[in-house]
Amino acid sequence: MVEPLDTLPTPCLLLDEARLRANAERMRAHLAGLGVTLRPHLKTAKSLEVGRIAMASPTGPATVSTLREAEFFAAGGVRDLIYGVGIAPTKLPRVAAIRAGGTDLAIVLDSLEQAEAVGFHARASGDPVPVLIEVDADGHRSGVAPDDGDTLVAIGRALTEGGAELRGVMLHAGDSYGLRDPEALAAAAEHERLAAVTAAGALRAAGLPCPVVSVGSTPTARFARDLTGITEVRAGVYMLGDLFQAGVGSVAVGDIAVSVLATVIGHQRAKGWIIVDAGWMALSRDRGTARQAVDQGYGLVCDLAGRPYPDLLVTDANQEHGIVAVRAGSDAVLPDLAIGAQIRILPNHACATGAQHDRYHVLDGENRVTAVWPRINGW
Amino acid sequence: MVEPLDTLPTPCLLLDEARLRANAERMRAHLAGLGVTLRPHLKTAKSLEVGRIAMASPTGPATVSTLREAEFFAAGGVRDLIYGVGIAPTKLPRVAAIRAGGTDLAIVLDSLEQAEAVGFHARASGDPVPVLIEVDADGHRSGVAPDDGDTLVAIGRALTEGGAELRGVMLHAGDSYGLRDPEALAAAAEHERLAAVTAAGALRAAGLPCPVVSVGSTPTARFARDLTGITEVRAGVYMLGDLFQAGVGSVAVGDIAVSVLATVIGHQRAKGWIIVDAGWMALSRDRGTARQAVDQGYGLVCDLAGRPYPDLLVTDANQEHGIVAVRAGSDAVLPDLAIGAQIRILPNHACATGAQHDRYHVLDGENRVTAVWPRINGW
Repeated sequence: MVEPLDTLPTPCLLLDEARLRANAERMRAHLAGLGVTLRPHLKTAKSLEVGRIAMASPTGPATVSTLREAEFFAAGGVRDLIYGVGIAPTKLPRVAAIRAGGTDLAIVLDSLEQAEAVGFHARASGDPVPVLIEVDADGHRSGVAPDDGDTLVAIGRALTEGGAELRGVMLHAGDSYGLRDPEALAAAAEHERLAAVTAAGALRAAGLPCPVVSVGSTPTARFARDLTGITEVRAGVYMLGDLFQAGVGSVAVGDIAVSVLATVIGHQRAKGWIIVDAGWMALSRDRGTARQAVDQGYGLVCDLAGRPYPDLLVTDANQEHGIVAVRAGSDAVLPDLAIGAQIRILPNHACATGAQHDRYHVLDGENRVTAVWPRINGW
Repeated sequence: MVEPLDTLPTPCLLLDEARLRANAERMRAHLAGLGVTLRPHLKTAKSLEVGRIAMASPTGPATVSTLREAEFFAAGGVRDLIYGVGIAPTKLPRVAAIRAGGTDLAIVLDSLEQAEAVGFHARASGDPVPVLIEVDADGHRSGVAPDDGDTLVAIGRALTEGGAELRGVMLHAGDSYGLRDPEALAAAAEHERLAAVTAAGALRAAGLPCPVVSVGSTPTARFARDLTGITEVRAGVYMLGDLFQAGVGSVAVGDIAVSVLATVIGHQRAKGWIIVDAGWMALSRDRGTARQAVDQGYGLVCDLAGRPYPDLLVTDANQEHGIVAVRAGSDAVLPDLAIGAQIRILPNHACATGAQHDRYHVLDGENRVTAVWPRINGW
């Protein structure tokens, strides 16, 4: 199948395959140069076809954010997964079912309470489920403090004594999303590395195993200069890119591989508005760039070939209406787009915008549609 | 099927059927008292079962925001629909297919360009597609200015001369969402009514038909005191309710019929945080209450029975992590919730949170799950 872009029903999600492949290759080469394994996070793409481009092999390794993703990628042949969200004991039967199907699915936790429940489950089921202890890289979310060796060791002992496998530690330097300066980002990556190595050292000093030392976020993965002591890096947004990551500096606007195709459905000429059929339902409510130096509204507007119009944004959005206008203060001219004309909108956040859609329309180098790739949403 | 609530996998979307029915009945009685038809907007619920509770009969009338909704509800037996988003001529074949199936689907437009395209299509296809001219109630989005009789009449003539059916005018007073005072809301409803009546009068004075005069938004529907000259009201959020509408005053917090069920997956006790497995993917990125007098974060936290904890909010969210904490400045105490405990989260915006889910788990008066109702997302 090869179809012209302008025959697609709108709004819909487009994926530029060449940009995706270039983004995947850039991160792979960067991390190979640093001597670590890339374990791509598939929470952004949620697509088997994209995963196969990002992963080192069709069997993995990879990271997922939901058990539904784990089930989907396991069914698609991925055999090495981390479910990167703290485990609730009630979810262990689903984990066990995925593992019984032949996929080495590891889980994550950060408390003695969870470790005891997982150990109990491991002993009762006879499945030594592998566990990574989550370590708090920068205070932004979950995890044991990296210098809290007592808690790390207590969790590790509860796991191994219970019958689970202590596979290592994992961190996510989420605070790097608030940075912009390359030196500060490199420092955040080094901070993440040191926290991981410190936590791994505490386990090993107590005679506990820690074969995996896993870190990751797209900004720290991109700006890391030394990953000594780290075995693998998890990152996900880099594959698709978005305006928020462009604001951080992790990707260039010209690398963003996803966009929303929209059709002009009206004008309010006195106000300088073009109305399109992509509202927040198609773009998501994510306004991540509002906190950055350059606020991109609900998205940056491009022509059908994917070239940004100067300073043209989706400045506001209702559920199924987007309001396109020139950025406040800019002297750019509103393009003359008739009813029925189509545009492409680069999103604030690829994870959030992607989740509003159930498929990608895949584009070749001439912006023709060559395939439809399904996405897996939900839990 | 009747299941206890705490056996559901999390995160998932809950629907309190008694509250839904009470919300539907309250709006129906209010508008019946004002002598107008209620044409519920199904863009919030996106569910046939909810639609049947909200509609006057299983055949309608109703409003939809996407052609996929139109197809879904038409397949479910609804025979009287308005697709409430300005039409793109490329969508007319899909409209025609729905109409050919026996559903009286009307479309909306606000330009001569669209009217000519629709007229041409109507003549070519032999189907006199019914059209409502969108009128701009308050400058917030699309629509012809209500006092621009020349444009209204030109559009009306292009439609009728082309072969389409001019069915009337429609407005949406979206600016009412920014209000809070009941008197100001009643004034916004009156402003919407006057704009609609003015536009209808311009068409009729030119000898054009205008049998339908359609207005609507949940706040103006709720606070309207007189709807003389209006034939029908569209509203949608009122069925489910949300924290944003509670901030406007259109619903009470105790009327909110949707919530997200989540499980505790961690603690950061030194920070006063409880980590749950409902992040922005389950709650949506909608932070509508951030602009209101009371900012409810990513949602208000309730116990399993649906009773709000004092001042307990989802204060921040990552993709699959929610951070639950006491509202800043409050002296409320963080509840003692163990790993595995479940909570319910009332959302900022029912339309946005609902769209993150593909089904409702329906609760009876004792918070037991009695049914699963599918939702239709996408376009």
